[in-house]
Amino acid sequence: MSEISTLGEFGLIDRLTENLPKLNESTLRGVGDDAAVMHYESKNDVLVTTDLLLENVHFDLTYVPLKHLGYKSAVVNFSDIYAMNGCPRQITVSLGISRRFTIEHIEELYAGIRLACEAYGVDLVGGDTSASNQGLVISITCLGEAQRDKIVYRDGARPTDLICVSGNLGAAYMGLQLLEREKVASAGRKDFVPDFSGKEYLIERQLKPEARRDIIEELASAGIKPTSMMDVSDGLSSELIHICKQSDTGCRVYEDRIPIDYQTAVMAEELNMNLVTAALNGGEDYELLFTVPLTDKEKIDNLKDVRLIGYVTDKAEGCAMVTRDGNEIPLKAQGWNPLKEENQE
Amino acid sequence: MSEISTLGEFGLIDRLTENLPKLNESTLRGVGDDAAVMHYESKNDVLVTTDLLLENVHFDLTYVPLKHLGYKSAVVNFSDIYAMNGCPRQITVSLGISRRFTIEHIEELYAGIRLACEAYGVDLVGGDTSASNQGLVISITCLGEAQRDKIVYRDGARPTDLICVSGNLGAAYMGLQLLEREKVASAGRKDFVPDFSGKEYLIERQLKPEARRDIIEELASAGIKPTSMMDVSDGLSSELIHICKQSDTGCRVYEDRIPIDYQTAVMAEELNMNLVTAALNGGEDYELLFTVPLTDKEKIDNLKDVRLIGYVTDKAEGCAMVTRDGNEIPLKAQGWNPLKEENQE
Repeated sequence: MSEISTLGEFGLIDRLTENLPKLNESTLRGVGDDAAVMHYESKNDVLVTTDLLLENVHFDLTYVPLKHLGYKSAVVNFSDIYAMNGCPRQITVSLGISRRFTIEHIEELYAGIRLACEAYGVDLVGGDTSASNQGLVISITCLGEAQRDKIVYRDGARPTDLICVSGNLGAAYMGLQLLEREKVASAGRKDFVPDFSGKEYLIERQLKPEARRDIIEELASAGIKPTSMMDVSDGLSSELIHICKQSDTGCRVYEDRIPIDYQTAVMAEELNMNLVTAALNGGEDYELLFTVPLTDKEKIDNLKDVRLIGYVTDKAEGCAMVTRDGNEIPLKAQGWNPLKEENQE
Repeated sequence: MSEISTLGEFGLIDRLTENLPKLNESTLRGVGDDAAVMHYESKNDVLVTTDLLLENVHFDLTYVPLKHLGYKSAVVNFSDIYAMNGCPRQITVSLGISRRFTIEHIEELYAGIRLACEAYGVDLVGGDTSASNQGLVISITCLGEAQRDKIVYRDGARPTDLICVSGNLGAAYMGLQLLEREKVASAGRKDFVPDFSGKEYLIERQLKPEARRDIIEELASAGIKPTSMMDVSDGLSSELIHICKQSDTGCRVYEDRIPIDYQTAVMAEELNMNLVTAALNGGEDYELLFTVPLTDKEKIDNLKDVRLIGYVTDKAEGCAMVTRDGNEIPLKAQGWNPLKEENQE
């Protein structure tokens, strides 16, 4: 294992950014100058989003492999661009690296970032690398592009619109619970082998989420432009409230329509947790939540891996979930919010 | 003083981004969706640069006021865009905030960021805010634009080109030494009043640097397009080596041509430090270093606050400083490089 100080900042950057491919026409110059240079088609708008990930707040290296962490750090940014109905094109990666990380560690992290970039056709064009005395810090910014009349915001939902969600919810959260359980069980035991059998899907959803490019492509093929859209990072409940607040509407979603994977249900049972609460508030699903006009119902029914879960109402109706027995429970934004948690200094 | 947990992440963001002005036509949508949306003139390329600033690595809150820190964090990014001969347009701001910071603290930091944005005509369009158990983390990304044929890279210097630098060097470094000295002197003394009299300029260069937009404008008015350019953030010596390496050239700079302010010289004397070493390696000057064809000499002579310090040579000549007594000393990139320093975990 090699100490980073043997390379220094510029040596490390040279090593990490060796032979970077150029996957996009819009990328003119990448790493190596005061700024990267891009050119976008004049008919397109430019999108920018950014995510900050801090060790022991957003990730725990006890059970998160660095390559997976790199992959996920990039993908969560791509997800934000897809959530605008856009296409991610470039990222910049800033790292704060504490002394316990070796060159090989950072190469692992970068291997994951590069893999995500390759999978989604995104160029790594710049960043900043520095020492940290505070564990690992990852800040990624993603640029994307979209035709102006295709961009979907959060504020366009209208009463009677249908509410749809891709994939299933709560699995990433259950994966996290499982990893935390095995971490506790393994404490102090060197020979410990975690037991994930039959729950591989949950682990994968937590450690290696994918952004739903496929759904964006499906929507385009089907000629559907959502009236509003966002990705589910903080939990369905919190995101529905965002859309309704910004669109000045209310909503009803049906408990029995919320898509939940079999493994998620088994795990909730095992942990004695409320399944629907986990699916509503778990977060980190990176599924797409969107609304479409009622007239698109038939088109939506034909999409694979998209579920219709409710409808948009007047603002006065508020935001609520209709339970299996027909009661209404107001939605609360009790999503994952580290600024309200205990894991602080 | 108010705890951030009383607002939560979204409440804090709402408060910090209230009444943000829109200063640029290129900004279409700012804070409040999965991504911000911009549109740039089709004749222009888009520039992106990013900087990560970590508490106790890049700044020490013992003597850096939060408002100044915010201002500087934004300005160092603008400086990178000017160094491409571009114009900064938008920034995103990601913050990791530990528990000891109150809402008022973060408002101070934001006040500085907003002030910088106003001064340079830049829009704050997005970001990410989260808890940190690692002190204060600031990650800023800046987007800018420039006409393609106006962009200046680091790799265009040619033998016989003249090497120029704006302003003066070493002052920010001396300001840092002064602040560190007063910090040590003040330890444990509540009634301590730091003595900065006659050294206000050094303190200002360290705490509230400016980006040299004026030089970019002067160059344009004078019809000068540099052959290469970068900003001096890691020290003149390190930056000259970057330009020469990327341009495949060597260089000679003259010791007696390096611009140094009177206060910098007095401070070096007081601290018994080598003045030229401080000017060559101090860093954080945020001046512009650039090269121009020999034929532009007369135009350069007419610019105010730009000094001709040497010339570009063939690569075989290496990079060296010619001392007052005519000797040549090879330049070394011993600039400020936190990845080689001791201040780590």
